[in-house]
Amino acid sequence: MAAAARLFRGPAGLACARVHVRALGSAPTGLGPRRAALAAAGALGGLGLALGLWRRQTALAAAREDEEDGELRQRFMAPPVSGMRELRRRRRELRSRMELLIMETQAEVCRALAALDPGASFSVDTWERKEGGGGISCVLQDGEVFEKAGVNVSVVSGLLSEEAARQMRSRGKSLKAKDGKLPFCAMGVSSVIHPKNPHVPTMHFNYRYFEIEEADGTKQWWFGGGTDLTPTYLNEEDAIHFHKTLKEACDKHDLKLYPKYKKWCDDYFYIKHRGERRGIGGIFFDDVDSPSKEEVFQFVKSCAKAVVPCYVPIVKKHRNDSFTPEEKLWQQLRRGRYVEFNLVYDRGTKFGLLTPGSRIESILMSLPLTARWEYMHTPPESSKEAEILEVLRNPKDWVH
Amino acid sequence: MAAAARLFRGPAGLACARVHVRALGSAPTGLGPRRAALAAAGALGGLGLALGLWRRQTALAAAREDEEDGELRQRFMAPPVSGMRELRRRRRELRSRMELLIMETQAEVCRALAALDPGASFSVDTWERKEGGGGISCVLQDGEVFEKAGVNVSVVSGLLSEEAARQMRSRGKSLKAKDGKLPFCAMGVSSVIHPKNPHVPTMHFNYRYFEIEEADGTKQWWFGGGTDLTPTYLNEEDAIHFHKTLKEACDKHDLKLYPKYKKWCDDYFYIKHRGERRGIGGIFFDDVDSPSKEEVFQFVKSCAKAVVPCYVPIVKKHRNDSFTPEEKLWQQLRRGRYVEFNLVYDRGTKFGLLTPGSRIESILMSLPLTARWEYMHTPPESSKEAEILEVLRNPKDWVH
Repeated sequence: MAAAARLFRGPAGLACARVHVRALGSAPTGLGPRRAALAAAGALGGLGLALGLWRRQTALAAAREDEEDGELRQRFMAPPVSGMRELRRRRRELRSRMELLIMETQAEVCRALAALDPGASFSVDTWERKEGGGGISCVLQDGEVFEKAGVNVSVVSGLLSEEAARQMRSRGKSLKAKDGKLPFCAMGVSSVIHPKNPHVPTMHFNYRYFEIEEADGTKQWWFGGGTDLTPTYLNEEDAIHFHKTLKEACDKHDLKLYPKYKKWCDDYFYIKHRGERRGIGGIFFDDVDSPSKEEVFQFVKSCAKAVVPCYVPIVKKHRNDSFTPEEKLWQQLRRGRYVEFNLVYDRGTKFGLLTPGSRIESILMSLPLTARWEYMHTPPESSKEAEILEVLRNPKDWVH
Repeated sequence: MAAAARLFRGPAGLACARVHVRALGSAPTGLGPRRAALAAAGALGGLGLALGLWRRQTALAAAREDEEDGELRQRFMAPPVSGMRELRRRRRELRSRMELLIMETQAEVCRALAALDPGASFSVDTWERKEGGGGISCVLQDGEVFEKAGVNVSVVSGLLSEEAARQMRSRGKSLKAKDGKLPFCAMGVSSVIHPKNPHVPTMHFNYRYFEIEEADGTKQWWFGGGTDLTPTYLNEEDAIHFHKTLKEACDKHDLKLYPKYKKWCDDYFYIKHRGERRGIGGIFFDDVDSPSKEEVFQFVKSCAKAVVPCYVPIVKKHRNDSFTPEEKLWQQLRRGRYVEFNLVYDRGTKFGLLTPGSRIESILMSLPLTARWEYMHTPPESSKEAEILEVLRNPKDWVH
């Protein structure tokens, strides 16, 4: 019993638990793993021998889990919000696998960025939300290469606020509440990287999963996310590389996805009052709940894995480019536009500000370290500044 | 006829027109001014003599108007949006008198600020809105004393957008539309002054008048406005001076106004997601439509006249204060909060962004030249920075 209890209580991550499940799952008994092991052992002969064997197998499995688990924890930036034990308990559920994916993505991106900016390091804050859940915020500030880089994981649950429900209903969801209450669970990894050099673009990505329980107990679920680039100056080669990498990730799943989500991105990151997009786009999607939970999850996984190959080569290429004070100033004005989009239009920011108990510092970590607003600033015709504005006003196709 | 036509066509301002009306209005005939003059002249005897006298009187009046008008135009920053002729035609209407008041206020404030920052000057832009109306934007940027100072007049009319109507209804207005249409007319003077020196506070004021015509032809009208101060560091003497000056302006009309509007200001300029007010307050009111149009207008006039005495002494006192780079940094972080309030919560900014054809540069001139967001910045306990935060979290009474 002690070993069995340990199997469920030990600090093992879901990835190890999955390996373990597959190993035991080969017993063709239709029983759960513990019972399958017991039945297999029983078939060998006497109960004492069977129990001894079972204990040794379980202890070995637990030791292997502990070891794998230690490695996993070392790879993550902090222990997962839901806890290793809980993640293992419900290891087959998508929310557990998604939580692992966002943890892995956070760690992968933080390591890749830290390697580009050797003098700087990420601060790691874990936080709890008293209404349910919490998060891990990793922020690198005032580095040599990055002005502000944040990679945030959050896993929150509780009851949806009235205003948040209203916003979701306005997107066509029915959401029948029970006594006005809608239990929800939302998780995601979200990141904005603002580099110092105006020739290195800002990058944003976010992958999230949402579950809402309706009055009759049915669960609505959907995925959302995207990766997009906001350059201060246009570099066509970078734009093509970025979009091509995203297209490859999408194409593995369905050739229709990239064109659809590329357009959605251009439409979503639109600063209506300026008549400009925030950047040169990428992909964006929301409320995706077909063809199946598994297929959408695999697609999201491919997108998350594409973040580093999308962005890191661009940073490497330009981080030592020389720049003028005028170029820095133009970057600061574009940062102002970034702030305008995020505070006025961004769905994630709005959801965060409306959700009671949200961690504001994590939500607003997307804002740049510095920004600027000049009255009536208009770049001269045919300038490099006018060139990027043109693309922000009339998005281009970067991959044919 | 030529003279009579000139009376209505000539470039005379409303103030002169009002003087003129009072002079002719003394004829106890119950006739309009032209007919009254004619009748008075007729009573003297022969028609030729009467006409001659009338022509001379009218020509003299027109000349006096032209002269007064010239002075008035010189006092304004630009010709009024509605045009002198139109303002004179409907000189008794409140919207004409309000337009004059906002023009006068704009000029008064711009002159007072320019005098404090002799090297700098206001750029003056007049703009038209194709859906109806326009405005005059005066902006001083990158001066010695002021980082960015904007004083904006706008007079717009047309049909209310669906979203703007929704917002107004959410504040309890019925607004019965005819075929979904709600003709409106809105005007106001609005200003944000961001000084360079962190010991000189940011100041904002706005006085506005709104008219909406409902389906049955009845007009809803209301006034709104306020003046408030946002210091980077707390100076109690300044806070008391500012609030006392506002209280005096209010007390002339009703002793209940200052306490009511002071509280409204603290409630309105609340950055909910931070649990902080934007500044140390002042007064704020909206949807005010009683006791009468005339009385509210007179109150608004007193408030508008109090702007310069509220603020100018504080600027004079601190514009040469020395400051450290750390104090400048704290100012930049507070500017970030200013941006957050204006883009996330401010009713005027939202209304502007939602109104088709709005002049975005004039609406967003309220944003500071530069702002900063640091992740997890917390000032040390008992510091000057913590002192102002305490007041922003728990507003004080400054006048007893």
